[in-house]
Amino acid sequence: MAAAGLRAFGTKGPGWLRRSPWAPLSAGFCSRGPAGAGRPELGPRLTSARQRDGIRNIVLSDPKKRNALSLAMLKSLQSDILHEAESRDLKVIIISAEGPVFSSGHDLKELTDERSPDYHAEVFQTCSEVMMLIQNHPVPVIAMVNGLATAAGCQLVASCDIAVASDTSSFATPGVNLGLFCSTPAVALGRAVPRKVALEMLFTGEPISAQEALRHGLLSRVVPEEQLEEETMRIAGKIASLSRPVVALGKATFYRQLPQDLRTAYHLTSQTMVDNVALKDGQEGIKAFIQKRKPIWSQ
Amino acid sequence: MAAAGLRAFGTKGPGWLRRSPWAPLSAGFCSRGPAGAGRPELGPRLTSARQRDGIRNIVLSDPKKRNALSLAMLKSLQSDILHEAESRDLKVIIISAEGPVFSSGHDLKELTDERSPDYHAEVFQTCSEVMMLIQNHPVPVIAMVNGLATAAGCQLVASCDIAVASDTSSFATPGVNLGLFCSTPAVALGRAVPRKVALEMLFTGEPISAQEALRHGLLSRVVPEEQLEEETMRIAGKIASLSRPVVALGKATFYRQLPQDLRTAYHLTSQTMVDNVALKDGQEGIKAFIQKRKPIWSQ
Amino acid sequence: MAAAGLRAFGTKGPGWLRRSPWAPLSAGFCSRGPAGAGRPELGPRLTSARQRDGIRNIVLSDPKKRNALSLAMLKSLQSDILHEAESRDLKVIIISAEGPVFSSGHDLKELTDERSPDYHAEVFQTCSEVMMLIQNHPVPVIAMVNGLATAAGCQLVASCDIAVASDTSSFATPGVNLGLFCSTPAVALGRAVPRKVALEMLFTGEPISAQEALRHGLLSRVVPEEQLEEETMRIAGKIASLSRPVVALGKATFYRQLPQDLRTAYHLTSQTMVDNVALKDGQEGIKAFIQKRKPIWSQ
Repeated sequence: MAAAGLRAFGTKGPGWLRRSPWAPLSAGFCSRGPAGAGRPELGPRLTSARQRDGIRNIVLSDPKKRNALSLAMLKSLQSDILHEAESRDLKVIIISAEGPVFSSGHDLKELTDERSPDYHAEVFQTCSEVMMLIQNHPVPVIAMVNGLATAAGCQLVASCDIAVASDTSSFATPGVNLGLFCSTPAVALGRAVPRKVALEMLFTGEPISAQEALRHGLLSRVVPEEQLEEETMRIAGKIASLSRPVVALGKATFYRQLPQDLRTAYHLTSQTMVDNVALKDGQEGIKAFIQKRKPIWSQ
Repeated sequence: MAAAGLRAFGTKGPGWLRRSPWAPLSAGFCSRGPAGAGRPELGPRLTSARQRDGIRNIVLSDPKKRNALSLAMLKSLQSDILHEAESRDLKVIIISAEGPVFSSGHDLKELTDERSPDYHAEVFQTCSEVMMLIQNHPVPVIAMVNGLATAAGCQLVASCDIAVASDTSSFATPGVNLGLFCSTPAVALGRAVPRKVALEMLFTGEPISAQEALRHGLLSRVVPEEQLEEETMRIAGKIASLSRPVVALGKATFYRQLPQDLRTAYHLTSQTMVDNVALKDGQEGIKAFIQKRKPIWSQ
Repeated sequence: MAAAGLRAFGTKGPGWLRRSPWAPLSAGFCSRGPAGAGRPELGPRLTSARQRDGIRNIVLSDPKKRNALSLAMLKSLQSDILHEAESRDLKVIIISAEGPVFSSGHDLKELTDERSPDYHAEVFQTCSEVMMLIQNHPVPVIAMVNGLATAAGCQLVASCDIAVASDTSSFATPGVNLGLFCSTPAVALGRAVPRKVALEMLFTGEPISAQEALRHGLLSRVVPEEQLEEETMRIAGKIASLSRPVVALGKATFYRQLPQDLRTAYHLTSQTMVDNVALKDGQEGIKAFIQKRKPIWSQ
């Protein structure tokens, strides 16, 4: 699937996106219509996306601006994540970036007082929607990081389900240096690493290395740069070989039970297990295992 | 106390077990009566238990079936944990396993569509009850792991208060490979390790080493295999030398305050401290310390 | 600012301290009036405090009693933290200690039955108030630890926003040895480290090393003893160079969003970001960055 094709389809938010207290942002974006080469008035495309064998690669493609998460970039990313989210051909998403900076976070030029507070609000709400979209999306989303990820860029890494990074990557929330505390990035960071690690990053703005990020839970895996793509594709390929409805059920249930008290969580997940066993792919998987053959998934 | 003796006593659930929205499972098990050599119609015993000097050792004893947590195994384990839970002679429980696999999780033959959804529900609910029982039990429960712990076996390790493992042990939640996402294991795993670690394990099904498990909080301690029993017994012996009511009060309060907001948690625990000071063993301990002598506990 | 001067000022609790279900403790302490050399009837001062260049150093100064957190010590510490908390001259607080023991926790002589349960309650409530005060305070609080921190002393380290320790320091919650489970320390410890680490510390009373404390999230940073002060002052100096209102907004928001569900947390923090951008220092910081100059903060 070509990136242009991706963008050409509607991006109407499915049910799991509509739990927002804010007006759905996707509606606004939909009305904008397809972007890219065919619509030069909207400028160059800020992300590119391609999909093959169930794996969608979304690439932040504005290296000259250090892949800043401008409103346009956020909407482009959102569109690429939302595109045909319910398609059985989609099994896993990888988010990576062109150039030495994964992402430097918000575009500060959008945050001066030349823009209204309403505009600033749109920037932060859109960013928050994208981060929640990753968690609410039916397929796993993997960050593949090679370089520096700062502020909302670090938030993006923290928000993905899995994060693989090269050993020369680093991570920071330096907003405090600019008088703009990384309060939205702190939502994702504070749920990924111990609070003392998060607070030192937030209060000093200093970067941590990939190894520190791994040790503290911000990353799932660190590899030498030359193995980054191979290792990420290996994990993505593994996930793409699995049953999509089973993975989707498991992902949604994981995030739902995490904040619950233990008894409520076990009540929910015991029911999920019963439902999972009853899925066509649940029975197929168990039978294939007992019969010592490879399972054939419905999707 | 011999294992047969253990099983011969009733296992009626104490008050702290009756908070379940499900019917108490222990009742059904009690009516089954004592299992083991004397009741061959129930098959061989799936766990064995012995108790000495306040330390109860419960061993998963079905190595040919990789210590699968079948419904019978779960009920046997539940019975051994519940047995005389309120006895002052019991100070700490160790759960270990025979053979190279600590536990492979659920018995898949119990999860095919040859069994009804009600039966599947009983399997998952019983398993969840056992996991919560460990947390709600008045004495600390230690997992001593030497080998592979997967799916609900990994959940069992994550659910114990303390977990000691040999350095060759490994841990996985591979259900997704069989079309059966480890959603109940994810409850315990997601509360033990950072979410990115949990999600990579859940989405890929790949094992992590004992060292990784230690680094991420799934284990308390990793030692060479030849020191595993000694180290576990050292920790258990230390706990067995302490005041049972003090440990029980502390354990119950720890899990109760953990999900609370800070002020509620401090309100609860400040009161607990006052109550603890007022306990006979609280005063004995403080006085013994001031008088530079060994305390003599009430139990 | 001399310590005596610090103590000479009132310490009436600001609004953010008055959320307590308990009567404000500061009132009682205020009526006590200034302590120290001028009031020998109150005994020697238990903490000392000095402030320079926005950095307040508070030192536990009762090394002969292993810096026990007696009621008098807690009130002295509370007073030094609360003193002119709203002053724009205060940017960051460092808490350290004289002697080889950072703090050994409560003074056990205050917990015998020679004192009433009401007195015991005052001890634990005051301690809890101090710990919450650190989190509710508008400026970051850093623990600088060189030595042993046990029980409520370990709680104090866990309660600070950032903790730097020498590599020979160690940490324990040994109350269980004295029949007094560290239930209040467990509130802070259980929010800083994985639960299996916390529970092993609480159940066995055994110490963990500085390196283990760092690995598990109890510390932000570990350095050789001879670099401890330099490294801590480097971090404090960095924070002191930042905008106080921006840091205060960020700190308060961080702790507020942490227990919230994701959507509520993003709703709150998106609004915080908009408010932060609108702050004078928010606009100054962004403009200085765009203009490639150093920002000049309002405070």
